[in-house]
Amino acid sequence: MGNADYVYPSTNEYRQCAHPVAVPPPQPFFKSFKNSLKETFFPDDPLRQFKNKTHSRKFFLGLQYFLPILEWGPRYTFQFLKSDLISGITIASLAIPQGISYAKLANLPPILGLYSSFIPPLIYAMMGSSRDLAVGTVAVASLLIGSMLGDEVNATENPALYLHLAFTATFFAGLLQASLGLLRLGFIVDFLSHATIVGFMGGAATVVILQQLKGILGLQHFTQSTDIISVLRSVFSQIHESKKRPKFFWISAMAPLTTVILGSLLVYLTHAEKHGVDVIGNLKKGLNPPSFGDFVFTSPYLTTAVKTGMITGIIALAEGIAVGRSFAMFKHYNIDGNKEMVAIGTMNIVGSCFSCYLTTGPFSRSAVNFNAGCKTAMSNVVMAIAVMFTLLFLTPLFHYTPLVVLSAIIISAMLGLIDYEAAIHLWKVDKFDFVVCMGAYIGVVFASVEVGLVIAVAISVLRLLLFVARPKTFVLGNLPNSTIYRSVEQYPTTNDVPGILILQIDAPIYFANSSYLRERISRWIDEEEDKLKSTGETSLQYVIFNMSAVGNIDTSGISMLEEVKKITDRRGLKLVLANPGAEVMKKLNKSKFIETIGKEWIYLTVGEAVEACNYKLHTCKPDATNEDSQPWNNV
Amino acid sequence: MGNADYVYPSTNEYRQCAHPVAVPPPQPFFKSFKNSLKETFFPDDPLRQFKNKTHSRKFFLGLQYFLPILEWGPRYTFQFLKSDLISGITIASLAIPQGISYAKLANLPPILGLYSSFIPPLIYAMMGSSRDLAVGTVAVASLLIGSMLGDEVNATENPALYLHLAFTATFFAGLLQASLGLLRLGFIVDFLSHATIVGFMGGAATVVILQQLKGILGLQHFTQSTDIISVLRSVFSQIHESKKRPKFFWISAMAPLTTVILGSLLVYLTHAEKHGVDVIGNLKKGLNPPSFGDFVFTSPYLTTAVKTGMITGIIALAEGIAVGRSFAMFKHYNIDGNKEMVAIGTMNIVGSCFSCYLTTGPFSRSAVNFNAGCKTAMSNVVMAIAVMFTLLFLTPLFHYTPLVVLSAIIISAMLGLIDYEAAIHLWKVDKFDFVVCMGAYIGVVFASVEVGLVIAVAISVLRLLLFVARPKTFVLGNLPNSTIYRSVEQYPTTNDVPGILILQIDAPIYFANSSYLRERISRWIDEEEDKLKSTGETSLQYVIFNMSAVGNIDTSGISMLEEVKKITDRRGLKLVLANPGAEVMKKLNKSKFIETIGKEWIYLTVGEAVEACNYKLHTCKPDATNEDSQPWNNV
Repeated sequence: MGNADYVYPSTNEYRQCAHPVAVPPPQPFFKSFKNSLKETFFPDDPLRQFKNKTHSRKFFLGLQYFLPILEWGPRYTFQFLKSDLISGITIASLAIPQGISYAKLANLPPILGLYSSFIPPLIYAMMGSSRDLAVGTVAVASLLIGSMLGDEVNATENPALYLHLAFTATFFAGLLQASLGLLRLGFIVDFLSHATIVGFMGGAATVVILQQLKGILGLQHFTQSTDIISVLRSVFSQIHESKKRPKFFWISAMAPLTTVILGSLLVYLTHAEKHGVDVIGNLKKGLNPPSFGDFVFTSPYLTTAVKTGMITGIIALAEGIAVGRSFAMFKHYNIDGNKEMVAIGTMNIVGSCFSCYLTTGPFSRSAVNFNAGCKTAMSNVVMAIAVMFTLLFLTPLFHYTPLVVLSAIIISAMLGLIDYEAAIHLWKVDKFDFVVCMGAYIGVVFASVEVGLVIAVAISVLRLLLFVARPKTFVLGNLPNSTIYRSVEQYPTTNDVPGILILQIDAPIYFANSSYLRERISRWIDEEEDKLKSTGETSLQYVIFNMSAVGNIDTSGISMLEEVKKITDRRGLKLVLANPGAEVMKKLNKSKFIETIGKEWIYLTVGEAVEACNYKLHTCKPDATNEDSQPWNNV
Repeated sequence: MGNADYVYPSTNEYRQCAHPVAVPPPQPFFKSFKNSLKETFFPDDPLRQFKNKTHSRKFFLGLQYFLPILEWGPRYTFQFLKSDLISGITIASLAIPQGISYAKLANLPPILGLYSSFIPPLIYAMMGSSRDLAVGTVAVASLLIGSMLGDEVNATENPALYLHLAFTATFFAGLLQASLGLLRLGFIVDFLSHATIVGFMGGAATVVILQQLKGILGLQHFTQSTDIISVLRSVFSQIHESKKRPKFFWISAMAPLTTVILGSLLVYLTHAEKHGVDVIGNLKKGLNPPSFGDFVFTSPYLTTAVKTGMITGIIALAEGIAVGRSFAMFKHYNIDGNKEMVAIGTMNIVGSCFSCYLTTGPFSRSAVNFNAGCKTAMSNVVMAIAVMFTLLFLTPLFHYTPLVVLSAIIISAMLGLIDYEAAIHLWKVDKFDFVVCMGAYIGVVFASVEVGLVIAVAISVLRLLLFVARPKTFVLGNLPNSTIYRSVEQYPTTNDVPGILILQIDAPIYFANSSYLRERISRWIDEEEDKLKSTGETSLQYVIFNMSAVGNIDTSGISMLEEVKKITDRRGLKLVLANPGAEVMKKLNKSKFIETIGKEWIYLTVGEAVEACNYKLHTCKPDATNEDSQPWNNV
């Protein structure tokens, strides 16, 4: 430093009027460690409301945190009840036929669809923080359960074991969901991006629709596989069975319950069930039987159950939280993602103990709930009571419901999930998101649901890694009549600064990009020198790095900077840093790189750096001493 | 937009003197796609030198690209030869004992170590771009081969199959290395960060040293496992065998070849081999026999060979490239990573066909080469010729070399790899890098080499993901007497701007952080409003986002911004953007978010944004119309 003072007195004179770059005040390691843990796991600061409260008040607030019904229950009015009654009965009329249909999709007994619309909504009404979510089973998760468990156990050959596996998988799904919430790991769900969900849902809907051709066309021996090739092969190889085609496959546009009633009436009156039209048959009267004794914890089934539970649990969670958030946005209230996970997880754990399979907040049913004017989660309670009545007294009415009606219900729900407009929007705005979306779609349709999901998440994560591994670097120029420096590509009116190359690095400097950045920076310098040589302008003297967008640096990154410093020294160039942030300054300081580069070559803004370089440029030549130049005999 | 013009005439007046933010000129999709592909795979622009050249010249340059010897060969002088002769003979004296030792480490016949120091160096001398790399086998990769192949085949029970598997694994390692280079996927090696390598090497060295206790203490029935617990258990359970302890284990500090010569002489003179001292025994005279007929491509061995090849290939590549780069940095020349991969890969493919196992550029041997004054890769040729002489005429001399000497050689080489000073430096500069390093060390020592590697890479990648998933956000304040705005934490002298909250987001806005950012931004606004309320200052009117460090945005990120816009609208706040970059502006434009926020609320610098807000603040109240306010009856 003393040496630098001697060589550049003028620079230090100049610096009198420039702003010094601050190294942030040192923090004890455990304090900063605690802070970053807090930011990672508690970004919403859930303990904020507990501050400065008495113990009993803290206990009550804690209870309220896990049971939001304690918060809104006391303020519940008769007005709310009227609205919730109407919306509750409306969603029950949807829940009953959809429940039966989706249970068939999972190869489970139809009655399970009704059971699953009774217990879980009651739990959710107490624990959930959404006012609009209507709880129930969903098509995609049902399909997944059917396909994943079907690989291990045949549902028609061994229905009891299959059923018990479904309960076990639901139990593990709930356990995973609740744990994610309790461990504040909700951000895992964020890795299912919007683009992934669009592609995934569209793909699953396509597969479900193709599978329902089974019901509509009345085909036997339909494939259990979910990929499009086997489905289409089944359809075409069985086309000669079309004589068995039921007569009523056109009833698909009407509202589900009406369809069910009309369909059942028609079958009952015409006795079509004796002429090739499959019907639901007997449904047992009575409420959910307990099922916690049925869990299968023995190998080799345990692995299948855990795997199925994990995948379906995450998918169901992503759908439930996305749906809850969308409607909360409309009505201007907040959803706590982690709290929702605990609620959804608990309702699945309890549900799995009482003959329910995986439930979440389906989009279609929640939208109906919202449109029917629901006010609180009480509409779920109303729905549960309606389903309870159905279970106790009305199940015999479904005896004659034709399966083709259920297929029609599923298909009409699925058609809405193929959101090709969203895909077009993705293509227009962000090509990479479109690739993610199509990856999910194609993976689901042509391979399997899991493959589609893995492809989409892998491409998404690859994008994050590529952002860091291949950061954008660009040359800055001076906006005319200002001290502002911006990308010459974005602002074509900018002017070059003679003798100075200004580079901006647009990502943190980490191990994953330090080799790349070293090569890229060398190339920028080469290109600039070539350009200056060809035009015969002033030779290059200074290289300024704008570090504004460099959020962090690791030890590999610091080594890279040290190497770049050697490269510039060797070429007789001065390396200058502009606006390094707090994290970067801290690490440059600890690694002594600030001393290597010289504190007087770090400026607060690009403008000040350029001014200082210009000042130097017009008073004396920059120093070109190679600090480590040794008499190597280069070949 | 017309509406905005009407409500804020003054803002537009103000904007006359502010700089507009540019949407970058639109580029055809395929052009930008081509550009980003080029930046991802060809950051070093290897085709640059081929521009504007004749066809024959292009062919010659291409040949030179893959065979750098054509470039430096014609300029080779007698001076160089003298230096290369000395260094070549020096590294041969190291290569012979080390080669034999490391082959024993891999449970391979000792002669393989000599074979591997003959063919691969010749290939590398033609294709490699480093002048200092000395080719040979390395301890860590040898250990890995021994442990991974040993899991599948017992080297003492089935030595032929084990040997053939080693050739096959080497072949696949070479294939992988060359492919990575040809496919320009060299950046995969970058994911083994400096911290990972420090921890990994230290851990592997610890394990090797513990294993060599076998040789030193002369223990029989030593465990084949590499984890510390089984190694220590073996040592302690066999401590009663110490009567067999050989007499010469103190010879470890001297130079390897001297040790070998003295050790062999002593054994020869005292006939210690008949008193419990293990010796190498007969080594077959003659050059490398061909081995391409020995490859094992049948299951179940193929999987093991491929897996071993992949892992050892990557590790060896990382070491070779890191070593090459370090010495190139000293001597001021450049190493082309992808070209090096092709060279190292080719030498392993060819080597595996002629009874060599995995080679790369070991650090210790290259350092000796460097210090002995090598000038070009010709020193490798000299070494290869020296080894050839040894193979042809001198192998009988190694008959009496005691194994304990080999152990001593390995241990002395390994001690240098435990770089605890580097670990301390990591702790001081970057705690996260220290965790990566210790993860690798502990994983290797207490579990296995693969586990250590997976742990370290997983933690490193997690760090990249965490950087994006939990970006830093901070409040900016005004530096006194300037229009510069910086983090209030880094610059405690900054002043708040009354009525305006300025936030900086320090990472791209992607699906992985959009939920977090929405919550975090809401909390910043809450906290700011609470603070203002408690002090009774002017209420909050504007929220400015400094987008300088937001390198990119995806569709989830745009949705997040739209939601934040709704939140601020509802609270009667105005959202203002400052300095969005080219990529961000492009996507905000395509998604019409620019129209949602209003083009007049996007400024080039934070300073201009604040000035405009202040101008508005003192002339009229900001507009607080909720664009989507509907008469929701909130509970």
